[in-house]
Amino acid sequence: MDLIESLAVKSEQKILLVVIDGLGGLPNKKDKTELEAAWNPNLNKLATRSALGLITPIDIGVTPGSGPAHLALFGYDPLAHQVGRGVLEALGVGLAIKPEDLCGRANFATTGSDGTLTDRRAGRIATELCEELCARLQKEIPRLEDIEVIVRPGIGHRFVVVFRGPGLGDGLTDSDPQHDGLRPAPVELASPAAAKSARVANAFIARCAELLRERAAANCVLLRGLALPPVLPSLRERFKLTPACIATYPMYRGLARLVGMDVLEAGSTWHSELAALRLHLPEYDFFFLHFKETDKAGEDGRFDTKQEFIETFDEEILPQLLALKLDVLCITGDHSTPAVMAGHSWHSVPVLLNSAYVRPQLVVEEFGERACVHGSLGHMPSVKLMQLLLANALKLKKFGA
Amino acid sequence: MDLIESLAVKSEQKILLVVIDGLGGLPNKKDKTELEAAWNPNLNKLATRSALGLITPIDIGVTPGSGPAHLALFGYDPLAHQVGRGVLEALGVGLAIKPEDLCGRANFATTGSDGTLTDRRAGRIATELCEELCARLQKEIPRLEDIEVIVRPGIGHRFVVVFRGPGLGDGLTDSDPQHDGLRPAPVELASPAAAKSARVANAFIARCAELLRERAAANCVLLRGLALPPVLPSLRERFKLTPACIATYPMYRGLARLVGMDVLEAGSTWHSELAALRLHLPEYDFFFLHFKETDKAGEDGRFDTKQEFIETFDEEILPQLLALKLDVLCITGDHSTPAVMAGHSWHSVPVLLNSAYVRPQLVVEEFGERACVHGSLGHMPSVKLMQLLLANALKLKKFGA
Repeated sequence: MDLIESLAVKSEQKILLVVIDGLGGLPNKKDKTELEAAWNPNLNKLATRSALGLITPIDIGVTPGSGPAHLALFGYDPLAHQVGRGVLEALGVGLAIKPEDLCGRANFATTGSDGTLTDRRAGRIATELCEELCARLQKEIPRLEDIEVIVRPGIGHRFVVVFRGPGLGDGLTDSDPQHDGLRPAPVELASPAAAKSARVANAFIARCAELLRERAAANCVLLRGLALPPVLPSLRERFKLTPACIATYPMYRGLARLVGMDVLEAGSTWHSELAALRLHLPEYDFFFLHFKETDKAGEDGRFDTKQEFIETFDEEILPQLLALKLDVLCITGDHSTPAVMAGHSWHSVPVLLNSAYVRPQLVVEEFGERACVHGSLGHMPSVKLMQLLLANALKLKKFGA
Repeated sequence: MDLIESLAVKSEQKILLVVIDGLGGLPNKKDKTELEAAWNPNLNKLATRSALGLITPIDIGVTPGSGPAHLALFGYDPLAHQVGRGVLEALGVGLAIKPEDLCGRANFATTGSDGTLTDRRAGRIATELCEELCARLQKEIPRLEDIEVIVRPGIGHRFVVVFRGPGLGDGLTDSDPQHDGLRPAPVELASPAAAKSARVANAFIARCAELLRERAAANCVLLRGLALPPVLPSLRERFKLTPACIATYPMYRGLARLVGMDVLEAGSTWHSELAALRLHLPEYDFFFLHFKETDKAGEDGRFDTKQEFIETFDEEILPQLLALKLDVLCITGDHSTPAVMAGHSWHSVPVLLNSAYVRPQLVVEEFGERACVHGSLGHMPSVKLMQLLLANALKLKKFGA
C-alpha cells in the first residue's frame, strides 16, 4: 500500500462510501437474491451510468467478520491489521477505547463445588441481571494495582472489561476453556510483554469470583480475546483525506475511529444519518455512511425484511444522496449476509461506482449480484476499492514518467 | 517472474505486440469511447476470432507514466524496476545511454541579483534559444574531472544532461527547489555512493552559471531526476526471445533498449514502421510495434483525432499486419489516455490476443473497452501479458510433471 500512499494528494473532490451492511445475498426459491428481488428503480437507473463490479472482502471462500470486512473497505489489509475480539466487543458497547487499553470479552459462568464449569453461559441470564452484576463489579473493582477497570454490560451473560493504565502488553491466552466440565484456566502469557496484563486479568477474575461466590448461576467470570487495539496509521496520514463516519451502531463508529475518522453525531435512524451528512458536507472530503439493518435481517434469515430495507434505501435514501451531487459515490457492502444462510458468508459483494470518469457497462440494466458479474470493474479485492475511489476523486498522482 | 523464466524455451513461433499508445478511453457525450466510436471493421472481425480482455498497467486506480506502463507490457514488474525521470528524458531526446550514465533533466532558469529564483522556466524561452545555449554549454563544458558531459536540448527551457565516466553512483537530490523565490539548492547525496556524482553535478551547475551570467533570462540551470538507468535482465536472457523494437519516438526506442531489444530503423511514419517490420521479419521472434499518435491526441483532448488514428490503424495498418501471418498477434495499449480527461488515466486497457490457441468469446462482436469486459481473458495485470504471449507462441514448457 506504500505505492498508493506515495501517490495520494489533496483534492477538492468529495467521496461518499455507502456501506449497506451484509448487502450481498444468495437466490431464494424464486431464484432472486434480496438485492435482485427488490424493486429498485433508482439504483437500477444509476447502475446504467455507473461502473459495476464485485469485491471479495478477505480472500476467495473466506467469510469475514465485521472488523476485517470494514478495514478492507477502508483500504487496510485485513490480514496485516487484525482487530482483537475484545477490542471489537468494547467498540460494540460504545466504549471510546484508547491505544493502551487492554480489552476483553467476558462471560458470566457457573462453576460447581469442585471448581469445574457447569455452565459457561451462567444459564443465559437476563440482560437486566447482567447489567446489575456489572454495576456491582464496577463499583467493587474500580482499580487493580495502578490500572483503571472499566466494566460494561452486553447482552445476556456477555460483558466487556477494559483495563486502562501503564504497562499492559498484548499477548494473553483465554481463561475460557471452551467446554463445560473443565476448570477455568488462568490467563497466561503468550508474550513476555504481557506479564502485568496477565497479573491484572487474573486478579480481576479472582476478585469477581469472591464477589459472586454466593450466587447460584453467575458465580464466576470467563475472559477471552484480551487484546490491545491495533495501531493503524490514519486515513489522513495515508491518503491525505479528511474523513468522517456516519453510523448508528457503536462498533462501526469505533472501527472508523481506529482509522482516524471523525465520528459524527448521527442519531439512530437512516434519516438522522442523512441529516448528519447534509450538515457536515462542507467539512470533509470522505464520508463513510453505514446502514446496519440489512445485515441484521440477513442474520435473522428474514429475506423479505432484508429486501424491504434495500427498497427503503432505494426509495427514501438514494434520491437524497444523489441530490447532494458528490463527486464520487460508491454503494456496496462490507460482506454478504444471505438470508438463506442466516449469517455472514464468503460470497463477493456487489459494488456500484459513480463518478465523471467511469465506463458504464454495455448491456447491464440493474444493480444485482449477477448483473455485477458483467460489470466493467470486474472482480477485485475489497482492499483495492479505496484506491479506486481516490483515483476517481483525482486524489492520486501519476506513477512514474 | 522466475517461474516464467524457468519455463521459457526457444520456438519458431513469432510474436507481434502492437502497442497503440494510450488506447483506452472513456465515453464522450455520445456514450462511446474513442475505440468504440471508431469505424473498425477489421478489428471487429478479428475480435470475433480472438480472445479479449482488459489489462491493468500498474495497480487498480494508479495512473502510469509511459516508462512503467511499457516495462509492465514487456513483463517487468514496474514497481521493482523504476526508471528515473532523468533517464526517461535522456531516452526521450534520443540519447543512446549506457549503464553507468548519470542522466538528469535540466531547466534553464532565472535568478535575481540576490541569488533567488525569479523564474524556474527562464520565461519559457524558445526551443531555438535552448538549442543555441545547449550548443554553447556542450562546447564549453566537454568534461568535468574524468567525466564526459553530454548536453542535449529539449523543448522550450528544458534540456538533458548526461554525465559519462567511472564512479558515478546513484542517489542525488534535486537542485530545483520547485518554487520561485528560493535559492537553487546544491545537489546533495541521498546515498554515500553518490559523492562523485554530486561533486560533478554541482560543478556543472557552477560552470553553467558562469557561462550564462550575462543573460537576462536564462542565467542559470536547475537539475532534477538525476539517475542511473535501471539494470534490467534482457528479454533474451529471461524469455529466450530474439526481440526487436519498431518505434518512431525516442523514448520508446530507449525503453526497448533497456530490456535488450534490437532497435530497428523505423523512419517516422506508421508506414515506414510497417516497412521495417516486413524487412526484418525473418530475423526476430518478438516484435514490439509502437504507434504514438493516439496518445498525443488523447493528451490534447482531441477525441475525434484519436478516433481517426484508430480508424487509420484499422484500415491501413491492420490488414497488412494480418497478411504477415505471425503466430501470435496482440493489440493493446500501454495505458488509457481518455480524450475527455486530456491525460493518462488509471483505467484498464483493452487487449486483443490472436493465435491458434485462443478461446474467442460467445457473444462479443467488437473490440472496445466495454466489449472487453466480456472477454475470455478477463482482467489481468499488464505484467502478466508477456507470459500469455509466450504461452501462445509455445515458448513455455510445462510446469511440473
